[in-house]
Amino acid sequence: MDIFQQNYKQKLEETMIGYVQAKEMPSTIKEAMVYSLQAGGKRIRPVLLLAVIEGFKKDPKLGLKTAAALEMIHTYSLIHDDLPSMDDDDLRRGKPTNHKVFGEAMAILAGDGLLTHSFGLIAEDPLITSDQKVKLIGLLARFAGPEGMVGGQVADIEGENKKLSVEELETIHVHKTGKLLIFSVLAGAVIAGADEEEQTMLERFAYHIGLAFQIQDDILDIEGTEELIGKRIGSDESKQKSTYPGLLTIDGAKKKLQFHFDEALDSLNGLDMDTGLLKQISHLIVNRNH
Amino acid sequence: MDIFQQNYKQKLEETMIGYVQAKEMPSTIKEAMVYSLQAGGKRIRPVLLLAVIEGFKKDPKLGLKTAAALEMIHTYSLIHDDLPSMDDDDLRRGKPTNHKVFGEAMAILAGDGLLTHSFGLIAEDPLITSDQKVKLIGLLARFAGPEGMVGGQVADIEGENKKLSVEELETIHVHKTGKLLIFSVLAGAVIAGADEEEQTMLERFAYHIGLAFQIQDDILDIEGTEELIGKRIGSDESKQKSTYPGLLTIDGAKKKLQFHFDEALDSLNGLDMDTGLLKQISHLIVNRNH
Repeated sequence: MDIFQQNYKQKLEETMIGYVQAKEMPSTIKEAMVYSLQAGGKRIRPVLLLAVIEGFKKDPKLGLKTAAALEMIHTYSLIHDDLPSMDDDDLRRGKPTNHKVFGEAMAILAGDGLLTHSFGLIAEDPLITSDQKVKLIGLLARFAGPEGMVGGQVADIEGENKKLSVEELETIHVHKTGKLLIFSVLAGAVIAGADEEEQTMLERFAYHIGLAFQIQDDILDIEGTEELIGKRIGSDESKQKSTYPGLLTIDGAKKKLQFHFDEALDSLNGLDMDTGLLKQISHLIVNRNH
Repeated sequence: MDIFQQNYKQKLEETMIGYVQAKEMPSTIKEAMVYSLQAGGKRIRPVLLLAVIEGFKKDPKLGLKTAAALEMIHTYSLIHDDLPSMDDDDLRRGKPTNHKVFGEAMAILAGDGLLTHSFGLIAEDPLITSDQKVKLIGLLARFAGPEGMVGGQVADIEGENKKLSVEELETIHVHKTGKLLIFSVLAGAVIAGADEEEQTMLERFAYHIGLAFQIQDDILDIEGTEELIGKRIGSDESKQKSTYPGLLTIDGAKKKLQFHFDEALDSLNGLDMDTGLLKQISHLIVNRNH
């Protein structure tokens, strides 16, 4: 897993940053876009996408551009979420957020630019068919847009300073982070030529791993160290955001984490593919300390 | 022209608004998106796109979804441009701007949602081929993104409070408004199956008509009436923005407008298509009072 991740992490970053660097545009927005693309992160979505392709014994390189598009979408969403009118965060992965460095207007435009480029990247991919591209672009719009991630951010903002139920909290996370994780595995499946049934099982896997991921995030916000997670500890609490530990206690949250982890692994069992990498990624998500 | 425009304006609005209404998403963002899509406007980009298809004797209906996508992109750009950190406008087409009604966070997300949906709309179009969709999506990303419209907005912001040359002002407009007008005619050409040479001539037409459009905008900001143009008169001047009349005098600006108008009509002459509608649209752009 480590070798797979390291290997593709570098190729992924070259693909994303190379794409932006090669385009003619005002230097400030190029800098702002590259700044956030280079800010690191776990690249968990691209790695999931590529691991699905590898699991079906196809060449992960076929998914590099879609994986880059996916990480661009994720990056744009972080830039916009951090804005003063949204979560108002100063720090992201231990570095000043985009608007802190480039100003609010440029951060909005850099996000718009990355969102737009992500669709362009898929459209220009020479390694997959037009039918595959159209399918991927349709899915990406659905899972990243108002029905998916953008809708989750709306629900998140509207849920602030409110006492939410666990179900409401879950709906927020399923949209805000879950949908893009589901896109990750579905995109891998589309590129590898997986059938409908396989896609459904992978979707179920990603649904549960997404919730596990989010619960672990909430736990780390309490138990983690600022140095490791790269943002202020207790920032959820200070913003009066509902969290799993807040609603269920730390122990209850850890039990729920284990439940979704087990369900995720269970979803993989019915699949006729090599699920070794996907299992390793799942363990990584649950056991991470940042 | 009037009948053509009226007929397709309504179909276009049904396509855009119907698309958003049919999707499941939080009601606030749906309201915010529909609010700006319904705010009216000349729909000049979709009308150009459909007029090109009609000019090649193909059914304009083939371009309805792409035209709707194009107008969604235009609408998102207006929402983001009006934000407090950008142009900080309270009024657009005589109505309060999106963030004045829904707040800044929701306006940013409504813009993100429209931008994302526009690519989804093209991807889901049942009337054109996958190859055409991929071509259109690639072009849209190029002309609407950092190389095009978004880059133009960056240059516009960076040009504020500076004395620009006419060339610098032109570069801003070519990107900020021109590129999406060029996409309008190219998209029509792609859908109608026009060849490379025809595309080049249409691109030249759109380049000049775009500049004519912008110069007329600047003139209206001085000579127009607030009631007709739906925003404050003299708002460019009060924001210290460079304008054609400011750099060239009103008479100089009117001469330049005539030059680009003539060039635009000249570009149409070499084309083996019915250019009647395109000529009518050109006249409309130059003689409009709002």
